[in-house]
Amino acid sequence: MHAIHVLNGPNLNLLGKREPEIYGRATLADVEAELRARAEAEGVALTFLQSNDEGALVTAVQEAGLAGAGIVVNAGAYTHTSIALRDAIAGSGALAVEVHLSNVHARESFRHRSMIAPVCIGVIAGFGTQSYALGFDACLAALRRRADEPARR
Amino acid sequence: MHAIHVLNGPNLNLLGKREPEIYGRATLADVEAELRARAEAEGVALTFLQSNDEGALVTAVQEAGLAGAGIVVNAGAYTHTSIALRDAIAGSGALAVEVHLSNVHARESFRHRSMIAPVCIGVIAGFGTQSYALGFDACLAALRRRADEPARR
Amino acid sequence: MHAIHVLNGPNLNLLGKREPEIYGRATLADVEAELRARAEAEGVALTFLQSNDEGALVTAVQEAGLAGAGIVVNAGAYTHTSIALRDAIAGSGALAVEVHLSNVHARESFRHRSMIAPVCIGVIAGFGTQSYALGFDACLAALRRRADEPARR
Amino acid sequence: MHAIHVLNGPNLNLLGKREPEIYGRATLADVEAELRARAEAEGVALTFLQSNDEGALVTAVQEAGLAGAGIVVNAGAYTHTSIALRDAIAGSGALAVEVHLSNVHARESFRHRSMIAPVCIGVIAGFGTQSYALGFDACLAALRRRADEPARR
Amino acid sequence: MHAIHVLNGPNLNLLGKREPEIYGRATLADVEAELRARAEAEGVALTFLQSNDEGALVTAVQEAGLAGAGIVVNAGAYTHTSIALRDAIAGSGALAVEVHLSNVHARESFRHRSMIAPVCIGVIAGFGTQSYALGFDACLAALRRRADEPARR
Amino acid sequence: MHAIHVLNGPNLNLLGKREPEIYGRATLADVEAELRARAEAEGVALTFLQSNDEGALVTAVQEAGLAGAGIVVNAGAYTHTSIALRDAIAGSGALAVEVHLSNVHARESFRHRSMIAPVCIGVIAGFGTQSYALGFDACLAALRRRADEPARR
Amino acid sequence: MHAIHVLNGPNLNLLGKREPEIYGRATLADVEAELRARAEAEGVALTFLQSNDEGALVTAVQEAGLAGAGIVVNAGAYTHTSIALRDAIAGSGALAVEVHLSNVHARESFRHRSMIAPVCIGVIAGFGTQSYALGFDACLAALRRRADEPARR
Amino acid sequence: MHAIHVLNGPNLNLLGKREPEIYGRATLADVEAELRARAEAEGVALTFLQSNDEGALVTAVQEAGLAGAGIVVNAGAYTHTSIALRDAIAGSGALAVEVHLSNVHARESFRHRSMIAPVCIGVIAGFGTQSYALGFDACLAALRRRADEPARR
Amino acid sequence: MHAIHVLNGPNLNLLGKREPEIYGRATLADVEAELRARAEAEGVALTFLQSNDEGALVTAVQEAGLAGAGIVVNAGAYTHTSIALRDAIAGSGALAVEVHLSNVHARESFRHRSMIAPVCIGVIAGFGTQSYALGFDACLAALRRRADEPARR
Amino acid sequence: MHAIHVLNGPNLNLLGKREPEIYGRATLADVEAELRARAEAEGVALTFLQSNDEGALVTAVQEAGLAGAGIVVNAGAYTHTSIALRDAIAGSGALAVEVHLSNVHARESFRHRSMIAPVCIGVIAGFGTQSYALGFDACLAALRRRADEPARR
Amino acid sequence: MHAIHVLNGPNLNLLGKREPEIYGRATLADVEAELRARAEAEGVALTFLQSNDEGALVTAVQEAGLAGAGIVVNAGAYTHTSIALRDAIAGSGALAVEVHLSNVHARESFRHRSMIAPVCIGVIAGFGTQSYALGFDACLAALRRRADEPARR
Amino acid sequence: MHAIHVLNGPNLNLLGKREPEIYGRATLADVEAELRARAEAEGVALTFLQSNDEGALVTAVQEAGLAGAGIVVNAGAYTHTSIALRDAIAGSGALAVEVHLSNVHARESFRHRSMIAPVCIGVIAGFGTQSYALGFDACLAALRRRADEPARR
Repeated sequence: MHAIHVLNGPNLNLLGKREPEIYGRATLADVEAELRARAEAEGVALTFLQSNDEGALVTAVQEAGLAGAGIVVNAGAYTHTSIALRDAIAGSGALAVEVHLSNVHARESFRHRSMIAPVCIGVIAGFGTQSYALGFDACLAALRRRADEPARR
Repeated sequence: MHAIHVLNGPNLNLLGKREPEIYGRATLADVEAELRARAEAEGVALTFLQSNDEGALVTAVQEAGLAGAGIVVNAGAYTHTSIALRDAIAGSGALAVEVHLSNVHARESFRHRSMIAPVCIGVIAGFGTQSYALGFDACLAALRRRADEPARR
Repeated sequence: MHAIHVLNGPNLNLLGKREPEIYGRATLADVEAELRARAEAEGVALTFLQSNDEGALVTAVQEAGLAGAGIVVNAGAYTHTSIALRDAIAGSGALAVEVHLSNVHARESFRHRSMIAPVCIGVIAGFGTQSYALGFDACLAALRRRADEPARR
Repeated sequence: MHAIHVLNGPNLNLLGKREPEIYGRATLADVEAELRARAEAEGVALTFLQSNDEGALVTAVQEAGLAGAGIVVNAGAYTHTSIALRDAIAGSGALAVEVHLSNVHARESFRHRSMIAPVCIGVIAGFGTQSYALGFDACLAALRRRADEPARR
Repeated sequence: MHAIHVLNGPNLNLLGKREPEIYGRATLADVEAELRARAEAEGVALTFLQSNDEGALVTAVQEAGLAGAGIVVNAGAYTHTSIALRDAIAGSGALAVEVHLSNVHARESFRHRSMIAPVCIGVIAGFGTQSYALGFDACLAALRRRADEPARR
Repeated sequence: MHAIHVLNGPNLNLLGKREPEIYGRATLADVEAELRARAEAEGVALTFLQSNDEGALVTAVQEAGLAGAGIVVNAGAYTHTSIALRDAIAGSGALAVEVHLSNVHARESFRHRSMIAPVCIGVIAGFGTQSYALGFDACLAALRRRADEPARR
Repeated sequence: MHAIHVLNGPNLNLLGKREPEIYGRATLADVEAELRARAEAEGVALTFLQSNDEGALVTAVQEAGLAGAGIVVNAGAYTHTSIALRDAIAGSGALAVEVHLSNVHARESFRHRSMIAPVCIGVIAGFGTQSYALGFDACLAALRRRADEPARR
Repeated sequence: MHAIHVLNGPNLNLLGKREPEIYGRATLADVEAELRARAEAEGVALTFLQSNDEGALVTAVQEAGLAGAGIVVNAGAYTHTSIALRDAIAGSGALAVEVHLSNVHARESFRHRSMIAPVCIGVIAGFGTQSYALGFDACLAALRRRADEPARR
Repeated sequence: MHAIHVLNGPNLNLLGKREPEIYGRATLADVEAELRARAEAEGVALTFLQSNDEGALVTAVQEAGLAGAGIVVNAGAYTHTSIALRDAIAGSGALAVEVHLSNVHARESFRHRSMIAPVCIGVIAGFGTQSYALGFDACLAALRRRADEPARR
Repeated sequence: MHAIHVLNGPNLNLLGKREPEIYGRATLADVEAELRARAEAEGVALTFLQSNDEGALVTAVQEAGLAGAGIVVNAGAYTHTSIALRDAIAGSGALAVEVHLSNVHARESFRHRSMIAPVCIGVIAGFGTQSYALGFDACLAALRRRADEPARR
Repeated sequence: MHAIHVLNGPNLNLLGKREPEIYGRATLADVEAELRARAEAEGVALTFLQSNDEGALVTAVQEAGLAGAGIVVNAGAYTHTSIALRDAIAGSGALAVEVHLSNVHARESFRHRSMIAPVCIGVIAGFGTQSYALGFDACLAALRRRADEPARR
Repeated sequence: MHAIHVLNGPNLNLLGKREPEIYGRATLADVEAELRARAEAEGVALTFLQSNDEGALVTAVQEAGLAGAGIVVNAGAYTHTSIALRDAIAGSGALAVEVHLSNVHARESFRHRSMIAPVCIGVIAGFGTQSYALGFDACLAALRRRADEPARR
């Protein structure tokens, strides 16, 4: 049975509470509920976590990576600054997919660079809460490919 | 009935013919076949095109945009240099999703900047031929949302 | 009754304990005492907090912002690197004033850029502990203007 | 008796005449009136001046500095380009406070750098005409500290 | 009796658990054991700590610095981004030696810059776990020099 | 009899079809009609061409240059990237005037640099379709000056 | 009756007196004469001014802008450095056209950036004294359009 | 029998027609004639092609590369901008030599960077039409080495 | 009889009045007196001027240049920013020598670039008031060479 | 009789001794032998020199240039840093060809810039020891052209 | 028996002769004496050399590298500029340790980049003459590891 | 009796032998003769040296500095790259004046930065061989000032 950890970075706990014209009215709890349904349908064990704390996210990535779980990570603001998260993904051998609600490439220039994208399988950005569902699918497909081909890289 | 144009830029006609250890053995024809099946299942009219020519891609984007079709575009090398494609997407009001086979953020630095991402809905990169399928889903969802909410922006 | 949260970032707990020739002999407790007196005189509920932890400061900003309190924030070193604090201020709708003890523009060049200034009302820097008092006044005036004009922006 | 010179740079003579939605309806004369009242209350001799001319401002800074007066300076556009004003402040030993009506850090990037901030005591920006009042208070406090401690560097 | 605090940053808890071909098979516990032996032989009180959390490391640096202990710090990814750690070392007067397992200058360019090196005594990088031993020796020698010459700087 | 070739780059075929609030309702056919009238009045042979294709524009510039015709060129997006157009103008000895509908200097920074301006006589930007008429006048005047002074450079 | 102020920056008083092989033999008085004739023919009140002084030009722009006159401005060297002129144009609501005798884009790189272009309607450069005539026409057309449409922006 | 495709980019069709003092009086037809003689003497099948079109050059590179032919390419202006040509050379496994008539390193700085050089065997620049002959020799030698050593990389 | 104009920029009127430990106790009047003596000995007509105003300096340079006088210029802060002074020297054909009291290359990096040096004969910096004497000698020698060789460039 | 000096910079004495998988097994003595045979066949006097010393290479370039000999120079690491070699080539009027064994454009970015290329006739890089033979041919052809046309430049 | 060559670059012959408050009173001869004692105790053959000449240092590195000796190198100023030293270390397969007396990261920014660090095992900087002793230990340990594991890389 | 060492860097031995239209016909021997006459008149012991070798110049600077002699140095190309010369001047306490024949600020941008200027007293550039005479005077004056005021700095 595959496991996927969905990790959410700083300020994502505000989702749906403010600025609904930008981010919509779905809360992070709604996102979790939808992913839990999807996970159940696919027979996947889902872990769902949010933290404003870089260190807590680093630890969560390590645990997922060492346990062989896939990661769907929306690192929020830490996406653009955290070498520690990058090292956690690379160092724990985690199979990670980076997701974003908004199209970060259409925002301020400091959001164009991702420190973690180079160590993720791929990136999905701009599709609102659907980004999570697409990321879940991509992550699961990669987990299944890896199970067939144990010697990834 | 929704229409989606899948546009492929320079050198994607080589897909599956060389460097299978990097890009896999699927050819562009395989990608097209899989998307045609998906389109048929969803009742979507699919147009599929590849060109090495920047001008031809600009014209193709214009036609799709003016016709109200969604666009899934893997602009290849032109992703990083073509202001003309950017203007074509923005100027024709096209609803576009940028996709890439490889994780461009893990490659040479000149592949980290996308000229077209800021005028697309979102970006999907790094999942091999699955990137197209994920892009198709994201594009179709956006077309359906737009149909419900005619006054996008 | 207006509320103001005064938030202090990393190393401000050292204030007054070392390098008195630079920062003076006033401790952070002295700053708090002076602001409490000022708050009492003005009928303002004061919250005063210091943390070395970026995540804890993000959470504190969110709580102040969601509660409608004003914020006087000396984010210390995080001023220059934390996109997460910036997003917390912007995302929680907080009315924030950035303050600094020293004139950051006269120090190392990496202290010249503030990640949070663009989402604050304004900035006060260089006046030692008086910066806090000036920031309190500016924040309170803005809270009172907002109370009169509920539709700020 | 302390003296404070309030110096205003280019285009500040337009204050209150245009773009009231941005800068409010207060004119520079209103600012002067408020500061004169404040100065009278504190027993401070106030000089108030506006010029579109960089050279005239340099001369005004020199006169204030040589006379031992404090300076509250809103150098407008010259803030970002004038090494001459910087040298005038440093060379005349002036005790200066930089003020701005708007939050310059939230505007175009060429307004983020101040050539004069490194030679001022501190900076206050973003509080509209209140920036002048806060700057006056900060400047007066510094004058009084200097009077007690004649050997400031 | 001298005291040395050995502080380890994010992901160093993974040491020896993965990628042994790069980092070897020694764990952080092995490093600690070797340093404890060395400390005992030299009559030094050793504190050994690892955290993924920037704020916790800032606090640990402050405590060591205020207590007059020497610091051997491998700040991991925070080496390259943390102004807060830099301020903690400088602000607490800590006598610190920066160490790295790998030769950071031979890795990605974002690892070439150290935010904390300018406030450390010196830097040792590239010698695997031996870097810690060399750092311990260098730190202890500096502590002893300082004890003879109380007025360092 | 003088000849002027008016060359239009990518996406200018969309003119007047979309975003009328920005570009007005005049189409490229309207621009052509106005210029044909002007050319007839001045006794000038007019060629009018639009292409999305960089290579086709290079060839068109060469033909105009070798034939001794003047060029009024709105190269659209290729203005900012095409060294090939620059070489075509310089290499064919073409007498060219660069025109733009919008004020490119007030748009994204990547539109501030023109690769072709250094080899044109001059630049006219920001006056909507009037830019073409002004460019036609400037080009014709230069053709007439050159006819009087055959040894230009 | 429309009014147009033609403002000339530093060193333009030298026009025609030196380096005729570059700038031709026409003096600034010749330029003024030609524009006066053009203004009379069009029924436009013309003001013509040259100054080497940045402050004087700022004041002249303010007067023109507040009076509702159009501005044709060749700011010479101040084009590339003067934020004060930019603020004067923007702050006084002036309708301005930037003109240059030479093709500034073919000269030193520090002449490629214009600080005032983003707040002008448009730019005309490279056509010698004809640049003024073209600029006059463009400015007058804009004044007439504004008269028809009083609510410009 | 070895095959070599000589590919010429934009504006090389102008060769010998203008600016003979720079490029000499030899035309591209002359270059072709000389190379045909050389090819005949060496028993090499020669293909010779010029295009102003980036897409056509990409296609020509692909055909040569897939057919196992060597490539001598003077990509003209596209040398400095075309990631598509780079991908075509790398993706088709082409064995390519980059040539230039002029010494590009002694010209404008934007001609100093070649996008295709990193995927070519080597570069020859500055020897006029002789650059082609030297490039032919170098390419043929490499083809012959590859024939002996089939497992190049 | 040769004429030399010695022009002094902003803040040089403060010379000798403050910071004597840096600039010495000589005032600008002392500098003028020494140069007058030197000029008298050499039979040179000396003009000596100081202004805080960029425009006034531009005009003074023009007058000197048009009159055929040599210029010794210490443009102070305008050295680093004034394109207008550069154009005045180049446009009036002035034979100018740039001098500085201090070694500008050993100060802040924004003082390392001179906008006017490229259009001066040469530069002398760092020798206190002796810089003026050396500049006078160099300027006079150049005037005399020019008198022998009227066709300088 | 023409003379060609082949100059080799630092570390080329190691050629063939280490890393044969990269540089092949040919030594610098082999290169010299091949060039001596070529020189004899062409009736050219050959000088062949290697030095690790920048100054010795500068002197060697001067001697060759002043003697009218051609230069084939592989300056090794000094290619990228030596302004002195550049000045020696330019100052002695040397006719020089720059050669490299490896394709420097495919290596580290600090090897992409050549300080000497702008003063050489041309550059040949990437063809192993064949680069020397091609460079010899190109240099000899240039010497012969210069003999026919004594007034080069 | 292992051999270690200690190489010292430009100006290290001045050690202990000037600026004792910075570098201490130990001379280079003192450093050599201490290392000779250490080498004797460890049974290591020591070579000790200082040169102001880049080429001589390149040659010394080659000799050490080809002989299989370890290198402890304080390249002084050449650390920051010499690609030739870098190539000598890499090309001769030398096992090198970079050492510095001072903490170069706390000095001018041009001393922060080391050209040779990426090809060394590691770097030790900031511990005065103790840096040499630590570097000797690190180098010897690496030599001994290499002796056990002959196939390093 | 004062001593002055005049040190000349690479390629200055070519002076007067080539490019007389730029550098004049005076040779380095002429420069030396003129300075020897000047030195004799002033009672100064003159040493005059030229070398193409950076290391030899470093050693010459050290000897002059340690002997208390003044230095007039035209370091040629090494001016712009040699940190070693900078360290030699600073480390030997030399009192140095940097001179240049040409106005380096009017040449290529890589000649605008001097690595040694910040540690010299001052700089004189652009006056041909007169630069040496002016530099001699400035150096001698400084030596005499230092003799009167032994505690320079």
